[in-house]
Amino acid sequence: MLYFRNDYGNGAHPAVWEALRKTNEVLTPGYGTDRYCRQAEETIRTLCQSPQAAVHFLTGGTQVNKAAICAFLRPYEAVVSAASGHICVHEAGAVEQDGHKILTLPSAGGKLTPDMLRDAMGGPFYEYSVIPRLAYISNTTELGTVYSAQELRSLGACCRELGVYLYCDGARLGSAMDAGGSQFADYAAACDAFTIGGTKNGLLFGEALVIVNPALQPGFRNCMKQQGAMLAKGRLLGVQFQAVLEDGLYLRLASHANAQAKGLAAGLEGLGVPLLVPAESNQIFPILPDAAVEHLRESVEFEVERKVDAEHTCIRFVTAWHTAPEDVETLLTLLKEAGV
Amino acid sequence: MLYFRNDYGNGAHPAVWEALRKTNEVLTPGYGTDRYCRQAEETIRTLCQSPQAAVHFLTGGTQVNKAAICAFLRPYEAVVSAASGHICVHEAGAVEQDGHKILTLPSAGGKLTPDMLRDAMGGPFYEYSVIPRLAYISNTTELGTVYSAQELRSLGACCRELGVYLYCDGARLGSAMDAGGSQFADYAAACDAFTIGGTKNGLLFGEALVIVNPALQPGFRNCMKQQGAMLAKGRLLGVQFQAVLEDGLYLRLASHANAQAKGLAAGLEGLGVPLLVPAESNQIFPILPDAAVEHLRESVEFEVERKVDAEHTCIRFVTAWHTAPEDVETLLTLLKEAGV
Amino acid sequence: MLYFRNDYGNGAHPAVWEALRKTNEVLTPGYGTDRYCRQAEETIRTLCQSPQAAVHFLTGGTQVNKAAICAFLRPYEAVVSAASGHICVHEAGAVEQDGHKILTLPSAGGKLTPDMLRDAMGGPFYEYSVIPRLAYISNTTELGTVYSAQELRSLGACCRELGVYLYCDGARLGSAMDAGGSQFADYAAACDAFTIGGTKNGLLFGEALVIVNPALQPGFRNCMKQQGAMLAKGRLLGVQFQAVLEDGLYLRLASHANAQAKGLAAGLEGLGVPLLVPAESNQIFPILPDAAVEHLRESVEFEVERKVDAEHTCIRFVTAWHTAPEDVETLLTLLKEAGV
Amino acid sequence: MLYFRNDYGNGAHPAVWEALRKTNEVLTPGYGTDRYCRQAEETIRTLCQSPQAAVHFLTGGTQVNKAAICAFLRPYEAVVSAASGHICVHEAGAVEQDGHKILTLPSAGGKLTPDMLRDAMGGPFYEYSVIPRLAYISNTTELGTVYSAQELRSLGACCRELGVYLYCDGARLGSAMDAGGSQFADYAAACDAFTIGGTKNGLLFGEALVIVNPALQPGFRNCMKQQGAMLAKGRLLGVQFQAVLEDGLYLRLASHANAQAKGLAAGLEGLGVPLLVPAESNQIFPILPDAAVEHLRESVEFEVERKVDAEHTCIRFVTAWHTAPEDVETLLTLLKEAGV
Repeated sequence: MLYFRNDYGNGAHPAVWEALRKTNEVLTPGYGTDRYCRQAEETIRTLCQSPQAAVHFLTGGTQVNKAAICAFLRPYEAVVSAASGHICVHEAGAVEQDGHKILTLPSAGGKLTPDMLRDAMGGPFYEYSVIPRLAYISNTTELGTVYSAQELRSLGACCRELGVYLYCDGARLGSAMDAGGSQFADYAAACDAFTIGGTKNGLLFGEALVIVNPALQPGFRNCMKQQGAMLAKGRLLGVQFQAVLEDGLYLRLASHANAQAKGLAAGLEGLGVPLLVPAESNQIFPILPDAAVEHLRESVEFEVERKVDAEHTCIRFVTAWHTAPEDVETLLTLLKEAGV
Repeated sequence: MLYFRNDYGNGAHPAVWEALRKTNEVLTPGYGTDRYCRQAEETIRTLCQSPQAAVHFLTGGTQVNKAAICAFLRPYEAVVSAASGHICVHEAGAVEQDGHKILTLPSAGGKLTPDMLRDAMGGPFYEYSVIPRLAYISNTTELGTVYSAQELRSLGACCRELGVYLYCDGARLGSAMDAGGSQFADYAAACDAFTIGGTKNGLLFGEALVIVNPALQPGFRNCMKQQGAMLAKGRLLGVQFQAVLEDGLYLRLASHANAQAKGLAAGLEGLGVPLLVPAESNQIFPILPDAAVEHLRESVEFEVERKVDAEHTCIRFVTAWHTAPEDVETLLTLLKEAGV
Repeated sequence: MLYFRNDYGNGAHPAVWEALRKTNEVLTPGYGTDRYCRQAEETIRTLCQSPQAAVHFLTGGTQVNKAAICAFLRPYEAVVSAASGHICVHEAGAVEQDGHKILTLPSAGGKLTPDMLRDAMGGPFYEYSVIPRLAYISNTTELGTVYSAQELRSLGACCRELGVYLYCDGARLGSAMDAGGSQFADYAAACDAFTIGGTKNGLLFGEALVIVNPALQPGFRNCMKQQGAMLAKGRLLGVQFQAVLEDGLYLRLASHANAQAKGLAAGLEGLGVPLLVPAESNQIFPILPDAAVEHLRESVEFEVERKVDAEHTCIRFVTAWHTAPEDVETLLTLLKEAGV
Repeated sequence: MLYFRNDYGNGAHPAVWEALRKTNEVLTPGYGTDRYCRQAEETIRTLCQSPQAAVHFLTGGTQVNKAAICAFLRPYEAVVSAASGHICVHEAGAVEQDGHKILTLPSAGGKLTPDMLRDAMGGPFYEYSVIPRLAYISNTTELGTVYSAQELRSLGACCRELGVYLYCDGARLGSAMDAGGSQFADYAAACDAFTIGGTKNGLLFGEALVIVNPALQPGFRNCMKQQGAMLAKGRLLGVQFQAVLEDGLYLRLASHANAQAKGLAAGLEGLGVPLLVPAESNQIFPILPDAAVEHLRESVEFEVERKVDAEHTCIRFVTAWHTAPEDVETLLTLLKEAGV
């Protein structure tokens, strides 16, 4: 079976694996207080050009979004997100479980703009309503679209103007950086906090949370622990992040995944297959005749996004750091055979 | 430095490591829906002689306690625990964060008895009070004491009589089974739910939650996801649990740790060192003169439990599956040199 | 000043007042365990033709919605509501504060239909999403529109078919019953739970919660107390509800309010004033030129709903049991003077 | 039946009643934004000599404790309370429902001392524990004991030194002021926030929350609304508080209740009846032979506190602003007849 189901279907990149292997028998203190985490935190601060940033390592994306939002907001403060945002549709109500409403904005491509934020967060607000205080974006978005460095700057300026927080979920940050020409430092400059996703880009698991805004830093370790989000053998996270960040591997892996997606998108275009949204990163959403979708199932793993009309279905192909160019070719051949 | 700080200071046992290595490049669906998790779940059901049990894999102990208690109780229902219970003192208020009060019972050795449960959970209860609905125990306890198989049966019978749930936190279940002569099936018979701890007994990370009571099974996967407790590459948990459970390694590792602790306790007894509680499993709590404690710091890693009087301190030594017998000998020699 | 701001601007109806006065010096047990509450509960069960219903008295509308939803749902279960629902926009995130997501459906008139419920609650659902379990409606709606008895029956049948709960917020139930030809028993037949609003129809304060579904009854008093929603002198609620329900006063008051609104709507129609939604109950939403709105401010109290275009604003007039017919006449005269 | 069950068994004091009557037909804006609330807030600020204090009116004691603590603390911050505190035993887990742990301190008389606070709140604290941030006291306590003005000052100084909040639940503040010689201004000087209880001292219902610490003031109205704790006809609270506070009635009522309790306690002493704790305010806890308790039940309403030994029971007598001196005499006679 060809695997285009997602970008967390395998284990660790060999370099990550080797770093874990080399340190496997070292004895360290627990909960991320070890030297490997210290080193990886420092690496991240340097990459971000943000020497005062607080860096924390957590195991998963829902976990880090939930813990951060819970730590940052007061009870009546709310989040603003595109309706397609991961926290809105793929986290089983994790943010609400901690007491916070998410106000959703319709957005065809899954992105927010400064104008949308001004409308939603500019007020006036009343005592009988929640107060939107944090703008949630993800880069890349759930639909694979990408904010450029310039767009991040505009959102950051807008949020400062409004007196609200900008939080970027970077579960696929590498892909976004490669596709949108942004640097770690752009996120540190624009956002109050953001994450660097490891799970989908070479690690066994792991998301780094970078809290840039000093007002949001105190107490986060207590919140992590209270959320059940502090890994006992925390050094596993530090070791892995250091392995991908110390020499640029993180971006090389994302770049490879994006390149495979670009090839796939070009092939689909050649076949005249429409896409739900333009292909910008490592997720591609082709709209296919139902018969073709059924045909593909026999030899390809993928997710179904949704039915779009009586005879067509939008599916999702995801490429990853380990996707072989030949697999893209084979997939395109299969699509041709399916009569697309 | 000698390492007696805790039992999660290193990485994975070689057999666990090898199992992860062999499967590292296999592509699977995410979130624990893979064949490795299926296999490990089945292994656990078999060991538990509980074919209808639901088995879930989570990454950490606080996380699994929090998710289970939140899933099992209604808003006004409360937990009863020994005051020294992990959920009371080492989880940063994780259970309360989800809305549930913990009623604490003083217990010198950290254990609960049926009489204590009858007093605390037998009622009558009033509309202005919480209703205690779940008895939390851990085996081993935070103080290293152990419930025997018979004690588990008595607690289970008592809870059924009272109409409340019995939940056993098995972060150190292997150590408890080795020390107390209990089997997996004893837990499945006595408890409504319990955990099998991996983090402290050979795994990189991982706790298995066994939900025996069918009434508590529905919806748990949604709760896990909502809690941020569903690992994307969930197969890492299935692979690791299968590796330690398929051939009894789990118990052999725990038995080794307990044996080292027994040797250490015997040596301490020979030196006339008093213990805070009798040594029953892999945690030993000697009470030492402060000067000796300071001397030890130079060459041994350990945790301080608490000051017991002006001149003495109770510290904690923990042995693990990787503790070398020679390290125990060296530690005892150091204690002698320290003039204990 | 003419008062068309809302229907909770004054105190109690004379009959309610007199009932409170007569019982003021009686000494009773607290928290609604008194004979007045018993009597009012029985009156409600009889009116509802629902002898097994549980009846509880709370002080306010947000409080009762919040307490009921929190009591009825498991952590990952969600509410479905029209986007204009009171719980979505006027309760400061009260439902989310207790952990539950509200899924909102666009609805021009603020009403839900069986088809909307089937789409939103029919599934399939996934482990990574919340599970919609309770349909929230209010009668009348936030926009003053009304569900008829037949519509209630259809919604109830649909919810039973889907295996979800139907909850009706009856903050303005009297107005809905008068306008839509529904009886208390229609609500008991269609809904799993509903409220009978007192605050806006003659009482100083008070909402009665009728829990028809026996599965939702246990533990509600504990939830009430935990929510801070159990009034110490609970008999004040029983006394008031008995006063308006024992002889039909509740409906007569609502009928008066509706009649005034009908007169007002007819007058507005005569003036050619467009309404945001058709006038069905005691809330009227005329769209007026901004200049006319400004003119009215000098002599009328009302709320602004929203700007509708550059030169027009939708405002809200509310009539109540104490609205004098002459005030409606005067208001219409003022509107004419304002050049509407 | 003689009524010594509690101090919220009747309705409103005549002066409060008259104030409600006079304003019953006035039309005002809702939610406490009316002129009566403004006036009562100002009266309270003046009495407290605290012109910058924020004053809010809520309906009940559990509600105000819950809303305040939820608004003041971050997720991992905890409350310290005497084990007998109202929030610990009589609020059905209301504080925990909002996510906060209560750390309980044993205290025979229900009071906290600066030394107890230093021990419990002085640290050090760890990332795996909650951080105690708010000291909860009530004056009078659940056992009727009283903090003097000097004791309040000491607690206030201690809390400032520790960097924690002091919160005083004043459900029976009048009784405490009368018994302990404290003034409203003493509470404003010592506490970060405190309540003035109306329900138990002449009002139909109502607690005023005085937030002295400016850092705790922002956003409280949103929290109130989110908690379902904002009364629609909020002016009912302002009217009532103004009625008892404008001319000292509040203290006169409390003084009457205390005087009746003092007479009762003297009579009990004369009969040689032991008390659970010294009688200081309007709650008396005599320890009586079980036979006498049974005898009393025929003609007196009271609460049972608890069995103290095989043959004795501690019961509770509460006096109120409306307790007649003759009722105290009759009660003492009944006790004599019962052979006490």
